[in-house]
Amino acid sequence: MSNKIKIAICGYGNLGRGVEKEIVKSEDMDLTAIFTRREPQSLKINSNTPVVNMKEMENWKGKVDVVIMCGGSATDLPEQVPTVASMFNTVDSFDTHAKIPEYYSKVNEAAKSACTTSLISGGWDPGMFSVMRVYANSILSNGNTYTFWGKGVSQGHSDAIRRVPGVKDAKQYTIPIEDAMNRVRNGENPNLKTGEKHLRECFVVAEDGADKAEIERQIKTMPNYFDEYETTVHFITEEELKLNHSKMPHGGFVIHSGETGDGNKQIIEYSLKLDSNPEFTASVLIALARATYRMNKEGQYGAKTILDVPPAYMSKKSGEELRKELL
Amino acid sequence: MSNKIKIAICGYGNLGRGVEKEIVKSEDMDLTAIFTRREPQSLKINSNTPVVNMKEMENWKGKVDVVIMCGGSATDLPEQVPTVASMFNTVDSFDTHAKIPEYYSKVNEAAKSACTTSLISGGWDPGMFSVMRVYANSILSNGNTYTFWGKGVSQGHSDAIRRVPGVKDAKQYTIPIEDAMNRVRNGENPNLKTGEKHLRECFVVAEDGADKAEIERQIKTMPNYFDEYETTVHFITEEELKLNHSKMPHGGFVIHSGETGDGNKQIIEYSLKLDSNPEFTASVLIALARATYRMNKEGQYGAKTILDVPPAYMSKKSGEELRKELL
Repeated sequence: MSNKIKIAICGYGNLGRGVEKEIVKSEDMDLTAIFTRREPQSLKINSNTPVVNMKEMENWKGKVDVVIMCGGSATDLPEQVPTVASMFNTVDSFDTHAKIPEYYSKVNEAAKSACTTSLISGGWDPGMFSVMRVYANSILSNGNTYTFWGKGVSQGHSDAIRRVPGVKDAKQYTIPIEDAMNRVRNGENPNLKTGEKHLRECFVVAEDGADKAEIERQIKTMPNYFDEYETTVHFITEEELKLNHSKMPHGGFVIHSGETGDGNKQIIEYSLKLDSNPEFTASVLIALARATYRMNKEGQYGAKTILDVPPAYMSKKSGEELRKELL
Repeated sequence: MSNKIKIAICGYGNLGRGVEKEIVKSEDMDLTAIFTRREPQSLKINSNTPVVNMKEMENWKGKVDVVIMCGGSATDLPEQVPTVASMFNTVDSFDTHAKIPEYYSKVNEAAKSACTTSLISGGWDPGMFSVMRVYANSILSNGNTYTFWGKGVSQGHSDAIRRVPGVKDAKQYTIPIEDAMNRVRNGENPNLKTGEKHLRECFVVAEDGADKAEIERQIKTMPNYFDEYETTVHFITEEELKLNHSKMPHGGFVIHSGETGDGNKQIIEYSLKLDSNPEFTASVLIALARATYRMNKEGQYGAKTILDVPPAYMSKKSGEELRKELL
């Protein structure tokens, strides 16, 4: 019998494929099953893992240590996680910030009564960026934290453009405004509105004969998504979109500007520059699955977030190795 | 009776004064005592805190929740912490990396048998930088971590210069080499020797009539400290040194360059830009004192490091507030 942590993936989109690809690098884990809502035979996967319909998950109780939930935050995770948490330990990347408290309490109830552990809202924001905000605020309480996103593709904004009549396809990049970041880094503590922190750059493929000026106007005036931002729109061909904009880069910055003593400025900055957003998110979830497994073994049941996880629990190395090599 | 965490400071140098100054910002803490080896009456402190000779610490058992140990790593902490840990919870910033495993086991033994909790090697390196190294390695195990220090004053190197005959006073700045950092940020994974990561800049006040060329030669060829580095030496007056070089700025960078999937580069960077090194270190120790107090209440006895601390334990905010405001 292997002593490895037995991981299952639930949901096989970009994130699920990312987890599948990265888990082989974790010598302490085995990928045991891929759960899907689709017909298992219809899935073309990249490993020799059993593919199982979600309806049969219950049969895998005891054979899986942690299920990494790879569905979307809009409908998949709120529906699936409370149910799955009643059978397995779970890790997810639920990222609808405003709904986290409500989501937390539902998952917490399910996990507590099943003596499982469910790590919610992992990934990088929420996730690593949350950790950085908490560290910075705990250390320099007299200060301000700023989060900037990008440069990266925003799926939500790309989708919004695609709903504009006459648009065939589109990609939207969120770009942090360098000048605003430098004001924060200089300790100016500026008061920045949403639109003063980010630019939006859109690459749009129009339908044949569509009114491009009208498309551009509709994008730029779209409430919530674009109207408060400086937005640029480029019309390109379908081939150009495929060739130059099919990757999923992302990243961002958490900058905290604090003060100690008699006006001493102290600046903390954390940044990510990611070629692949889903693969990085997958990597964070895998490390959190290791932590979740350990916390469950210790009897820490219920919903948890990355803020509850000692950093050492995410590492393959022992406490002794960590103190010697990385402390 | 106050519900605040009762903190004591042990050792009243730059760090102790930093803790004294910053603790007032932690509404959940009270500064209860300052312990010193010196004559209590001889200490000029900046608050109305009782000053107590270290020999009388035992009388304060039960009146102090956590003692923040502010002595030096060379002799103070290895001597004092095992003793103090047998009476109180402690937090320290022991930073002799090579001796951490030995130090850990001595403190662990003392704290375990007294049912106290001792957080060792807090601060920023070891400390926050260690946390960043562990997170980055746990998430992107296929990658390399680089630590750069500076720009900042190195006390050890300044002291070494002061021991050169003919030197009256000196300050040494460690400066990270921008070009090396950019190679790391670009994901080149360069193999960098110590001297390829940092420059050393020295500001020296010579004694009247001293042989400056000889001083410069002795500094630049000093084994371990300078011989492997590009070093520049500036001779300045005592007044200039006082005017321009009396602050204690520091900082640095932890950059991790990893790869996922089919050659996707993923870069994580954490940096600190500190006007005051001791005040920032003090701020980290205060947040860790809060965590140590909580871990002790939970029965987590023995020596701990920041790697064992859930980030939420360092915050004044409740789990609910953190999930709502910072996650």
